[in-house]
Amino acid sequence: MSPPEPLPPGATIGILGGGQLGRMLAMAAARLGMRCHVLCPDAGSPAFDVAAERTVAAYDDPTALDAFARAVDVATYEFENVPVAAVERLAAIVPVRPGARALAVGQDRLTEKQFLQARGIGVADFAAVASAAELRHAVEHVGLPAIVKTRRYGYDGKGQARIAAIADIDAAFAALAGEPVLVEAFVPFSREVSVIAVRGADGATASYDPAENDHSGGILRSSRVPARLRPETAAKAAETARAMLAALDYVGVIGVEFFVVEEAGEDRLLVNEFAPRVHNSGHWTEDGCAVSQFESHIRAVAGWPLGPTDRHADVIMTNLIGDDVDEWRRLAADPQARLHLYGKREARPGRKMGHVNQLRPLEKGAGSF
Amino acid sequence: MSPPEPLPPGATIGILGGGQLGRMLAMAAARLGMRCHVLCPDAGSPAFDVAAERTVAAYDDPTALDAFARAVDVATYEFENVPVAAVERLAAIVPVRPGARALAVGQDRLTEKQFLQARGIGVADFAAVASAAELRHAVEHVGLPAIVKTRRYGYDGKGQARIAAIADIDAAFAALAGEPVLVEAFVPFSREVSVIAVRGADGATASYDPAENDHSGGILRSSRVPARLRPETAAKAAETARAMLAALDYVGVIGVEFFVVEEAGEDRLLVNEFAPRVHNSGHWTEDGCAVSQFESHIRAVAGWPLGPTDRHADVIMTNLIGDDVDEWRRLAADPQARLHLYGKREARPGRKMGHVNQLRPLEKGAGSF
Repeated sequence: MSPPEPLPPGATIGILGGGQLGRMLAMAAARLGMRCHVLCPDAGSPAFDVAAERTVAAYDDPTALDAFARAVDVATYEFENVPVAAVERLAAIVPVRPGARALAVGQDRLTEKQFLQARGIGVADFAAVASAAELRHAVEHVGLPAIVKTRRYGYDGKGQARIAAIADIDAAFAALAGEPVLVEAFVPFSREVSVIAVRGADGATASYDPAENDHSGGILRSSRVPARLRPETAAKAAETARAMLAALDYVGVIGVEFFVVEEAGEDRLLVNEFAPRVHNSGHWTEDGCAVSQFESHIRAVAGWPLGPTDRHADVIMTNLIGDDVDEWRRLAADPQARLHLYGKREARPGRKMGHVNQLRPLEKGAGSF
Repeated sequence: MSPPEPLPPGATIGILGGGQLGRMLAMAAARLGMRCHVLCPDAGSPAFDVAAERTVAAYDDPTALDAFARAVDVATYEFENVPVAAVERLAAIVPVRPGARALAVGQDRLTEKQFLQARGIGVADFAAVASAAELRHAVEHVGLPAIVKTRRYGYDGKGQARIAAIADIDAAFAALAGEPVLVEAFVPFSREVSVIAVRGADGATASYDPAENDHSGGILRSSRVPARLRPETAAKAAETARAMLAALDYVGVIGVEFFVVEEAGEDRLLVNEFAPRVHNSGHWTEDGCAVSQFESHIRAVAGWPLGPTDRHADVIMTNLIGDDVDEWRRLAADPQARLHLYGKREARPGRKMGHVNQLRPLEKGAGSF
């Protein structure tokens, strides 16, 4: 298959989803002379403020989806809980990158784990369970502590319950009542890292340096590059992410989260999950690289050659969650802090309002410009 | 006077003018969580594609100006030929930064020269002329070759005629017939450089490294940093630009163009002109600095502290003029080229369609991250 013709400047990229990821994608597209058309159900979506065209519609509105598909040259999504049916509907009219398959795999934790396991990629032990009794049985298999997770619609720690003891099982199952769930072994990881990788329409792949992530309460708090990783572990993580892109016949940016488990002086990598989109743990690339993850995604989606993914600075990215954003005055005055705010009107608890990239010169020998 | 309170994230910045400078300002504002409202007479303006609010109206439409002023928290302009009366009208309702005075001085070449001369800032010899006879007399004073320029509405080499010999005078005057003009001595410069400087609402000033500019046909073709300048000349240029900001009680970014004349092994600096706005010769800052000229302008206009202006790369910025933009495929594939396109639909000759920043690691010892 020959690669598609690159979209010319002035083409319109459709984005399903209007959150901060869509906002940053739209800005990256605009820098390359592209127009963006954002479809989102919420009229107050952050991405609308920087989009040339806006459609306020539900993701299951067939008339709106068809009109959107006809108005754009290519479509993408910024949100992994967009219905697969919406993407399939668009795809009947216009190319959607990445496609419905990556979305379907990525939005179901069971399918995702099975997909990875079938390709020899390490994951935590897991089992699908349909009742408290099955959960009890599965816990005997995966061991304690364990985590019960809904198969779908989980993000930022939502849809999860921890089982520390057999006595927790009924309550954990009841807390997620009615949802299909799976149970996973708790992974005694020493670090969480992630790789932002990208695959072009021509099949070329590239990846950014792994970031080391700090989650708390299920929400990403900060990411830092360089991650404290053995070079061979970093290389292995990148190789795994790029292999996943090829296996999914993916076009665009993917975010792959790994657990690093130290065993007998060696690192074992387990994939925790992937997101079929640009990823919060890649926000450091906006200020640490010549080409950010957002531009990389737009380049891939538009059929352009991939750009460089080198890093020219060490970066600590910190999310501004809820009223963290009240720190904007201090951050605005900090010469090392590059502030990114999403224009959200209300700072609800747990809501990502912005992030800040703290830059430092590259560690000696850690990379080149 | 105490400095104004900084505008909070979510505030709306009004921009008069919808060209590529407005487009890049709007994106810088969005990164800081601000909304932009762009007013421009042309419905196809590049800045509209990334603006939260858009008003298509003439700059002399009082109803539209008043509604615009009431809808924004602060206003600025991206185009020096906006009528001063429009800015004055806005300023009766909302702060406008920089104000009407800088605009009035900057848009009249005679006033501009007189302003600079009165402050001891070197400029080419000049004289206002109202007739071919006066022009002949003035040419005797400033010498040959000389340049006749309209006082107003000149940019990108428009509104200029060169006088190489006395015999050219009638034709030159006729070519600019009906416009108030001035004549300037031709400056035998060795280089053209420019300084992008910024002054905050608190009176703090900062400047970026001078760029060395290459004009042809009156249009800027490329800018490079570092400029080939003696350090003391670079320092003097920065000092001059920052003194101009203070003299104009300016808030925002200014672009100051200098001629460098080598005399007896020393450099003499003459100000050619200034633009009371972000400037094409500062586009390298988007990729060469953590904080671009666009973010600097937005910070100043919003009453925020200025950001750092250090440079982390050497850059050659090249404008893509007219069908230069047809090179986009090659540039998209060049890993050193950061491509910026303006989303303009039609590539007319002489029209600025985009620019490209070619990055290289900092020359040894030339600066720090």
